[in-house]
Order: sequence, then C-alpha cells, then structure tokens
Amino acid sequence: MPTLGEIAAAAAARLQGCDPATVVTGVAPLSSAQSGQLSFLIHPRYRPFLATTQAAAVIVAPADADACPIPALIANNPQVAYARAAALFAPDPETRYGIHPTAWVSPAAQVAADAWIGPQCTVEAGAIIEAGAIIGPHCVIGEQAVIGAGSRLVAQVTICHRAQIGQRVLIHPGAVIGSDGFGLALDQDGRWLKIPQLGSVRIGDEVEIGANTTIDRGALEDTVIEEGVKLDNQIQVAHNVRIGAHSALAGCVGIAGSARIGRHCLLGGGVGVAGHLDIADRVHITGMSLVAQSITQPGTYSSGLTVEPNRVWNKISARLRRLDELFRRLTALEKIIYRNNAP
Amino acid sequence: MPTLGEIAAAAAARLQGCDPATVVTGVAPLSSAQSGQLSFLIHPRYRPFLATTQAAAVIVAPADADACPIPALIANNPQVAYARAAALFAPDPETRYGIHPTAWVSPAAQVAADAWIGPQCTVEAGAIIEAGAIIGPHCVIGEQAVIGAGSRLVAQVTICHRAQIGQRVLIHPGAVIGSDGFGLALDQDGRWLKIPQLGSVRIGDEVEIGANTTIDRGALEDTVIEEGVKLDNQIQVAHNVRIGAHSALAGCVGIAGSARIGRHCLLGGGVGVAGHLDIADRVHITGMSLVAQSITQPGTYSSGLTVEPNRVWNKISARLRRLDELFRRLTALEKIIYRNNAP
Amino acid sequence: MPTLGEIAAAAAARLQGCDPATVVTGVAPLSSAQSGQLSFLIHPRYRPFLATTQAAAVIVAPADADACPIPALIANNPQVAYARAAALFAPDPETRYGIHPTAWVSPAAQVAADAWIGPQCTVEAGAIIEAGAIIGPHCVIGEQAVIGAGSRLVAQVTICHRAQIGQRVLIHPGAVIGSDGFGLALDQDGRWLKIPQLGSVRIGDEVEIGANTTIDRGALEDTVIEEGVKLDNQIQVAHNVRIGAHSALAGCVGIAGSARIGRHCLLGGGVGVAGHLDIADRVHITGMSLVAQSITQPGTYSSGLTVEPNRVWNKISARLRRLDELFRRLTALEKIIYRNNAP
Repeated sequence: MPTLGEIAAAAAARLQGCDPATVVTGVAPLSSAQSGQLSFLIHPRYRPFLATTQAAAVIVAPADADACPIPALIANNPQVAYARAAALFAPDPETRYGIHPTAWVSPAAQVAADAWIGPQCTVEAGAIIEAGAIIGPHCVIGEQAVIGAGSRLVAQVTICHRAQIGQRVLIHPGAVIGSDGFGLALDQDGRWLKIPQLGSVRIGDEVEIGANTTIDRGALEDTVIEEGVKLDNQIQVAHNVRIGAHSALAGCVGIAGSARIGRHCLLGGGVGVAGHLDIADRVHITGMSLVAQSITQPGTYSSGLTVEPNRVWNKISARLRRLDELFRRLTALEKIIYRNNAP
Repeated sequence: MPTLGEIAAAAAARLQGCDPATVVTGVAPLSSAQSGQLSFLIHPRYRPFLATTQAAAVIVAPADADACPIPALIANNPQVAYARAAALFAPDPETRYGIHPTAWVSPAAQVAADAWIGPQCTVEAGAIIEAGAIIGPHCVIGEQAVIGAGSRLVAQVTICHRAQIGQRVLIHPGAVIGSDGFGLALDQDGRWLKIPQLGSVRIGDEVEIGANTTIDRGALEDTVIEEGVKLDNQIQVAHNVRIGAHSALAGCVGIAGSARIGRHCLLGGGVGVAGHLDIADRVHITGMSLVAQSITQPGTYSSGLTVEPNRVWNKISARLRRLDELFRRLTALEKIIYRNNAP
Repeated sequence: MPTLGEIAAAAAARLQGCDPATVVTGVAPLSSAQSGQLSFLIHPRYRPFLATTQAAAVIVAPADADACPIPALIANNPQVAYARAAALFAPDPETRYGIHPTAWVSPAAQVAADAWIGPQCTVEAGAIIEAGAIIGPHCVIGEQAVIGAGSRLVAQVTICHRAQIGQRVLIHPGAVIGSDGFGLALDQDGRWLKIPQLGSVRIGDEVEIGANTTIDRGALEDTVIEEGVKLDNQIQVAHNVRIGAHSALAGCVGIAGSARIGRHCLLGGGVGVAGHLDIADRVHITGMSLVAQSITQPGTYSSGLTVEPNRVWNKISARLRRLDELFRRLTALEKIIYRNNAP
C-alpha cells in the first residue's frame, strides 16, 4: 500500500494538510470513499461531497485547495494526477514469462526469453514476440507478425500474418488486426471478384485497441495507426485507413477504406466516416454523426439528432419530407409580397 | 416426442378438439407445418393459413378459438405458450460434466463437480465455476471471476478477471465481459494517459448476452446488468453503465459511459445512448435513434429517419441546411403582412 | 514470379508494347511502383502518374491505351483484370492437410483426408469438414455443422451446431455463424421468456464473411445467405433474414429479424434495416441510412446526414424541431395573401 507521500510523488502533486507517511488503502469516489482511501474532485458538481467525505485525502485543482476541508493533493490537472495515483492501486501486471505448456509455438517463431505466451495460444512460423511482451490466453499470432516490446494482448486476440504491432501496445479481447480488407471488383456477370489484400497493418507505439475492434490490412500499401492512438470497443477500421497520432475514437465508430484521420482528433461513439476523404488535425466529431466529405479545419462537427417523443418525431419526419414544397410556397408568397411592397 | 397433453400442460394451454395422447413430432409455421407438427397463430395476418395448414394442432388466442377449424391449444398469450411448447423440442442442453482433457484449469480455480469445462478452455487462478455451469469450447475465465450456477457460455467467450456472472445466464460466442473501460486523461502534451479500470462487472441472474457483445468493467465502481436483461449481438456497454432489470436491447446498440437505463426498457437496433444520462423505466427507443439527454417519462422516443430515393433525399438534406434562412425569410414576410393586415 | 505474358493470360488482357517474357516482381500503385512491378490505372485522377511511373507495365482500359507511354495490359475492366493479376502475387494459400496435434476432433466428426484442422481447433461430434477445407487456428465447429469443400475459416471462427457452410466460402477471424436469434416473449409479469431458436443457417457457395460479423440461426426456418454474397466486418444479421445472391454489405450494417434483401444489392457502411420487410433486387442504400419500410424498386436510397460545424448543426437541429410551427405560420400567411390577392 503506498503512502500519501509516494502518491504525491507519482502524481506530481503538492501535499496540503497531509502526513506524507499516511498509508492509503485504495481509491474511491468522494461519496463512497472510506477511511484510509484516496478520492478526487474532477467535476465541480461533486464539490459538496468534500464536506462529508470519509476519504483520507482528496486530489484537487489549485482553485479548490483553499476551501478543501480535508487533506489534499493539489495538482494542476486532477484527472491526470488521479490516473497516475490510481495506477499504484491497479493489479500487478503479469509477471510470468515463458511459454505455457498448452500453447503451440512454431519452431520457426522467435519468442524473447522474458516474454509470456499464455494458455492455448498459437504462434505461427516467422512471428516475432519481442522482450517483455505478454500474450494472454487464446491469442493467435500469424506468420511473420511482430509483437513489439512490452506490448500486451489480453486474450482471444487475432493478429494476422505480417501485421506489425509497436511497443507498449495494449489490445483487448476479441480484437482482430490484419484481416482482409473488403476489396471487390464486379465482373461482367455481376459477380464479385476478390481483390487480393497484399498490404499489411502497422500499429504504432502506445496504441490501445478495444474489445472486438477490427482493423483490416491494406489492399497494397499498409493500414496505419500512429503512435498513441486510443481505440475503444467494436470499432471497424477498413483497409488503407490512416489514423493520426494521439487521436481517440469512442466505441462503434466505423471508418471506410482509405480515409485519413488527422492527429489529436476525437470521434464520438457510433460516428461513421466515408471512404477516400481527409479529416484535419484536432477535429472533434460528436456521437453518431456521419462524415461524408473531407474536413479541412479544426473544430467540432455534428450531424446527430437526439430523440423526441415518437409522435412528435413522426410529425417532424413527415414535415421534413415536405421541405422542398415549403421553400417553394414561401418563394411564391415572397414574389407577391415584395412586388406589392416594393420600396 | 411429447404428446399434445404434455405440451398443453407445459404451455398452460387449454385443449380444444384434441386427443391429448396425440404425439407431436415438431413445431413449424402454419404454412409449412406437416402432419404431426404443432403450429401457432400469433400475428393475425397468418389467420388465413388456418384453413389449409397440415398441422396436427395450433396454439391460438381465445379470440381465435371458436373459428379454429383444427385441434387447438388455447392460451391467453400464444407467444408465451409457443415459447414454452417449443422448448420441448429444443435439443437437449449439454449434460456433460467434468473437464475436457484439452482444457487448462488452474489448480487454484474451483470447478463444481457437475460443471463442464469444454475443449481448449482456460480457467485462471481463483476463478469459481458453480454447480451445473456449462463452459463451452474455447472460453477464457479470468482470475477470480465467478460463473454462477446453471449458467452457460456457448463458445469463445471471454470473462475477464473478477467479473461476476449470475445464475442461469446465457452468453453467446465471442462476447467479452469485463474488458477495460475507455478511461483516458489528456496530459499537457496532448497525450492520453490511461486511467486504470479498477471496478468490475456484475451480471444478474437470467441475463442473456449476444454474440460479440462487449461489456466493460467499471472505472472504480462496477458496471451492472440487472437480472433478466436481454442483450442481442454486437452491443457495446461502456464502463459504469447500469441497465435495469428486464430491459431488452436489440443488436448494435451502443451505451456510453455511466449512462443508466431503467427497468423494462426496450432499445431498438443501432440505438446510441450518450454518457452520464438517465433513462427512466419503461422507455422504448426506436431503432437507430440517438439519446443525448436524459429521459424522465416512460413512452416511445425516436430520432431515426427512413430512406428516400437518393435524389429526393439530397434535396431534403440541402434544404435542411437552409432552415435558418427559411425561418428568417418567413419572419420578414410576417412583419410586412401583419403590419398591413393588423386587425 | 510470373511473366507479363502469364499475367495477361490470367487477366484476359491484351499486351501492348510489352515483352511477354518480362518477369514481374510485384504489384504497386502508379506513384510508388518500382522497376519490375506491375501497376494499374482504374481511377482517372491517377492518369498523370502514367508519365512518371517506374512500373514495368500498367493495366489500362482500352480508352487509355493509345496515350499510354509505357508497356500496357489492356482490359475492358481494369479493376477485374487487376484483381486477377494481383492474385498471382498473393501468398500461397495454406497447403497443409491433416489435423494439428493440438486440435481436438471428436471421433464422431468426419474430416476429409485433404482438409486441414489447425492448432487449438475444436470439431464436435457429427461435424463434416469436406475436401480441401482449411480450418485455421482456434476455430470451433459445432455438432453436425458442415464446412463445404474448399472453404477457409481464417482463425477464431465459431460455427454453431448444424450450420451449413457452402463451398469456397471465406470466413474471417471472430465471425460467429449460427448463434441463437434474439427471440423473446414477454410474460404477464414483464419477464422475458426465451423462444427456442430451432432453425439453422445456410451459407451459399463463394460467400465471404468479415471479421467479427455475426449471423444468427433461424427461429424455426433457416437464416439464408445466398451464393456470392460478400459481407464486410462487424455486420449483424438477425434470425430468419435472407440475403439474395451477389449482394455486398459494407461494415457495421445491421439487419433485423426476418428482413429479406434482394440480389445484387449494395448496402453502405452502418446501414440499418428494420425487421419483417423486403428490399428488391439491385437496390443500393448509401451509408448510415435507415430502411424502415420495404423498397420495391431498384435504385439508390439514402437517409444519412453529413456533418456541419457544431454551432451550425445545433441551430439546424433546433429549427427542425419547430418545422410544424413553420408550416402553420406559412399556411396562415397564405390564407391572408391569397385572400387579398385572388385573381
């Protein structure tokens, strides 16, 4: 169990009214923290709980420090400080190394001595598992795929042939990296001919990939996820997409083929991005919007519509389909009025 | 093969014009049922088939009983009666118990004597598999996870560490329970810092979870799916969500972090729910709608728009973007008219 | 490495200015092709690269042949010709046969002598794996399921009991075929009763199914995917759906129960199709549209809305909710004007 002093050091926070030797037993929200636990104040709406919390100490912003009635860890960015403090309470990462007896590793694969290959895994010929990588249970590492140093595949992850995973990448269960892109040519009989998907996938360092997310390999060149990108669950990334460094995409986003997303972008849940377009750096798309054209300027963009009671919505939807008529009727009136009321 | 009498007893139905000893060979729709099969009339549009069906008997509502020309099982709710009758024809559930020789079970896991651990499974240290649970092939049960009595994981399911699965829960292939939530803090350099996900997931009794559905663990407190909830395929449930008892969510729904869904709710396919909001009990959201604010009253809500021919839709979409201009032009006309036509 | 002559024969293309004996080392886009590589001109915007490409030869349409400054393979459909040429450079398909020692195959399953069962697979009793089928690592083949001749399951695929997969079918990682449909009856206490899913799934010949796509089994009759259908990643196909031959569905499409999609249809990414409706042959739905009614005529249909800057969109969204008021205000004006301006 870390002490407040150790936590403050890890979180780059300043202690106020604390005994640095106080041992902390865990982290918890202000409202439910118990004696001995550390809490945090990130959203102002939780400020009233400062008066009643049982927490041993609380992480606060400088603006909240003076009025803080309990021991405080003062940090410029309390959310970042909390992330660093909470990491001290996370379960130890796997420290196992070696190859589980139920795993199958091709004799033509290379596995670093301090990497771990978990139960029931398959590592195909030519694959490379670098130092300190943790391959959890039931993962498949295809031929000539590379798993960078310090990366972790939690469980049931599929890495297809030749995909390259960077260092300190975290991939959650059920993700599929390097499956064939959806490349089809229509022949003269109306039948689809498969276009071989000859490219691969490159995943940069410190990327996180959510559960059941899929990232296709490129048709000829590679699909690329740059360093520091964070992908939530059930995201679909099509072939030849490039996602710029440090962008974060929420769950259920779909990116069509050859789209390019800039750096430091934020895509809300369920957003759809059409193929063959560019999104600039620092673009924020709100949830369930459709991006059907390129976006060249940073900023926030939307096309989602929130719910109304069904009867109200049905009327809106019906009126919407008569918008053209409305414009024509208005124009007809304007012609009459402005003829009669010319200055 | 059950008899009509046995079926009537299971379905709480009343026999009309039937020999209770008649053996039934299967269930089928009215239009394709063959001699010896049981059918049902749930939607009125199939009523004409009563005259021509080859079925041995039909489940009908009381209102349809008098006019029914063939042997009938009369039930107040024919759909419920059908569900109970059909269960008699479902393949026997797995009756195997023990541990398949290709499974790997940690010596520090507890597996009930009458549970079944299927081929190629992994059960990690501290996991508990309760009485009568069926773990199908290729499932991963993480450290200290609990699978309640009588639950069934069909195949390729991942249960992450410490997740708690209730009793008589049914989980379909590819589902992932307890993966890390998408918790990130942005540091001063524009890089994402992972917020450790220290909570867990609790799944209530008699929940059903569809194929490739993902449910994240909580950031600090638990993600909770209450008893009797039914989740279809490819649903994404983010961290700290709570879904109230007996709600049913159709395929491809996405629920963002910390949203709370009430009891007895219905969410149509592809619905998106934003984070940190509340949906009351008995709310019905129609398909592909976005819920971006809390809903406090029961009822049906929508924001989906159905298709038009592309050329029509393009015109509507263009007009929509000029709605503000339209309001301003109308207001200008009104000023002129109502000045000229003042009472 | 194939020669230009061999490529032309495979692609049914005519050589212009080529030595048929030239050995080709790979395929690449015009802009990055190196000496010895084959390229292609499919989209006119890449035509300027013809002047500067280093490619050894290029696949072009007849209309581009005369002006082509380098050796050319002339084909009526360059995309189809490219697909055939590129297939010569695709990695050899698996040629292994037999059963990997880590796979578990029920003694009551039938596996053709020249089929391959990969590492850590499970093949249950009564399953049939036909000639030349390739079952990649970590697949589950349920009881009495059939995998047709020449089909390939890449990895981590789940085929549930009794599902029938045709010949030369390609299924990508994480796909689930034959999971239970979402069939529920509401009892008098507001609890969901499971309706047994007694049908199965039939997948036609030459179908391709993307990563993490799910296809449910039918409630009573079968879910059917006809021959030549192409499904991208993360598609959800509910029970009793039928998809007509040679239709192609992009990523993240969701099809609700009992919908019928025609032949030669195209569904863009993220499209939602409601249940119990029919879509005619040769219908094209653009991305992120909702189909809530049947479509009886071929053509292109849409209901997606592309993004605007957030402030603009918020105004549009607010105005949209006042459309009914707008119609009423306009009608009121019309009454006044047309009374005053009657001819």
